[in-house]
Amino acid sequence: MGKKKDAKAAKAVEDVFSSEESPLSVDVRTALRARTAAGEVLSPPDVDADGTPGFEGNKAEGRAALSARSARLAELQELLYAAGRVDQEAAPSVLVVVQGMDTAGKGGLMRTVAGAMDPQGVRTAAFGRPTEEELEHDFLWRIEQQMPEPGQIVVFDRSHYEDVLVHRVEGLSPRAEVDRRYGAIREFEEAAVAAGTRVVKVMLHISKQEQGERLLARLENPDKHWKYDPADLDTRAKWDEYQQAYAIAIVETDSDRAPWYIVPADRKWYSRLAVQEILIAELEDLDLRWPASTIDAEAEKARLAAL
Amino acid sequence: MGKKKDAKAAKAVEDVFSSEESPLSVDVRTALRARTAAGEVLSPPDVDADGTPGFEGNKAEGRAALSARSARLAELQELLYAAGRVDQEAAPSVLVVVQGMDTAGKGGLMRTVAGAMDPQGVRTAAFGRPTEEELEHDFLWRIEQQMPEPGQIVVFDRSHYEDVLVHRVEGLSPRAEVDRRYGAIREFEEAAVAAGTRVVKVMLHISKQEQGERLLARLENPDKHWKYDPADLDTRAKWDEYQQAYAIAIVETDSDRAPWYIVPADRKWYSRLAVQEILIAELEDLDLRWPASTIDAEAEKARLAAL
Repeated sequence: MGKKKDAKAAKAVEDVFSSEESPLSVDVRTALRARTAAGEVLSPPDVDADGTPGFEGNKAEGRAALSARSARLAELQELLYAAGRVDQEAAPSVLVVVQGMDTAGKGGLMRTVAGAMDPQGVRTAAFGRPTEEELEHDFLWRIEQQMPEPGQIVVFDRSHYEDVLVHRVEGLSPRAEVDRRYGAIREFEEAAVAAGTRVVKVMLHISKQEQGERLLARLENPDKHWKYDPADLDTRAKWDEYQQAYAIAIVETDSDRAPWYIVPADRKWYSRLAVQEILIAELEDLDLRWPASTIDAEAEKARLAAL
Repeated sequence: MGKKKDAKAAKAVEDVFSSEESPLSVDVRTALRARTAAGEVLSPPDVDADGTPGFEGNKAEGRAALSARSARLAELQELLYAAGRVDQEAAPSVLVVVQGMDTAGKGGLMRTVAGAMDPQGVRTAAFGRPTEEELEHDFLWRIEQQMPEPGQIVVFDRSHYEDVLVHRVEGLSPRAEVDRRYGAIREFEEAAVAAGTRVVKVMLHISKQEQGERLLARLENPDKHWKYDPADLDTRAKWDEYQQAYAIAIVETDSDRAPWYIVPADRKWYSRLAVQEILIAELEDLDLRWPASTIDAEAEKARLAAL
């Protein structure tokens, strides 16, 4: 790669790395919220998985906008981290729950959006098949252990919602137990919000056709076979049941304090951009300021000058 | 920000996001290794903190090169993660220990280099002042708990080396105990290497003048006062003693299997680029391949076509 090209690219990167404004022409949380302004709760099939609400640009423009705004996200996250350092008891925190069908792009979202922030104050937690120890406890036990501390942002890659989605469709728990869990989740999230955690729930919504194409691409690339799990097709065979289980989970657990967003995810770049904007909006709502100075800056400058 | 500018920037970003070649004109590990080819071990003062060995470009070019190579790092990390998924007992892992004086850029390094990889297989661990529980155990106890699992990369922000650096200079432990610890560290790291962990140790090396400028910049920006710790000046007052403690720790614990690198860090962009290249070189040494396919791809394609 030539030096000139490097320099040109570097300049372009610098140019876009400082955007204070949302690249979306709509309020992202209003546009993607599962519950409409009229109070109706949308099901995944009501939402166009291929859409890009509020963004007219193409993929390259979308990716540039994602980069441009990552610095803003990082700055807001640092403000939150600073608040946690100053008040380790009462600083707010943020939980982002990410759900979606296989291949919906959960992993890439972790890498791009969570990865744009400082690992010191940001953690991701992936919830796979429960371990034996986890199975001996209530389904929320392992979740509680991963909740954010004051000042932290935690992003869940799958979550307690698996325990009402998979358990409902696959019959892993009796229906009465699944029904009980919606209430348990509402109470759990409500308590987290009351304790100072903002809770945001995101369903990365892909179309069945797009999932088929992504699975086929994996099958056609031997390098990706290690990622391919034949059980994914068993889940795909129950597509409509899973979509319905999502619809029920969303209706049962959406609230203004712990809202669900259905994010179109057939275009990965859009879903990443949208989730980043949701997170930016949540952090901006906190209206954080840099902690007040507790040092005598002039005295410190004098000491520094002498060293 | 205009659409056209977005699109242009996006194109430039795409262009640089695929560099398979090191942007450095030297072998980074040979150039920055504390032990020279002749077997002599360098002290921090032997190394120009303002240097950019192997890179002729400016800051913007350096940052573009960092971006360009982050995709390569992410790819290698995914290969390692894949190896860990396939063989949870014997897959290799990587530990990067990052040390440096205050303001040397440890936090930014975590964000840019660790942040470029998939959080699923990468973790950072920061070691601050030990807790009471930690103080009841041997100094390596809290370190052991954060070591990487097979397939993982873990980056330490400070480490067990604090227990020979700070303890030596501040006299927190008797000299005999500090001297014992060098041997304990050698054995600990040797055992980690024998168990399949690659161990890389990095000292981010800044000049005293550069530290003074960075501390002054913090003092002049009230938004950053929360990060400012007056104790940093106490440490700065003992600059030469700390440099000497680093020199001793490096001589005592450098080995071909657990090498130390002294990375010039007066220019943050260079130190990030250099550490990224060291990590890329370590991962390339592992000579990983995508795991062999264990699925019948044609049968799966037929199943998929029917769904």
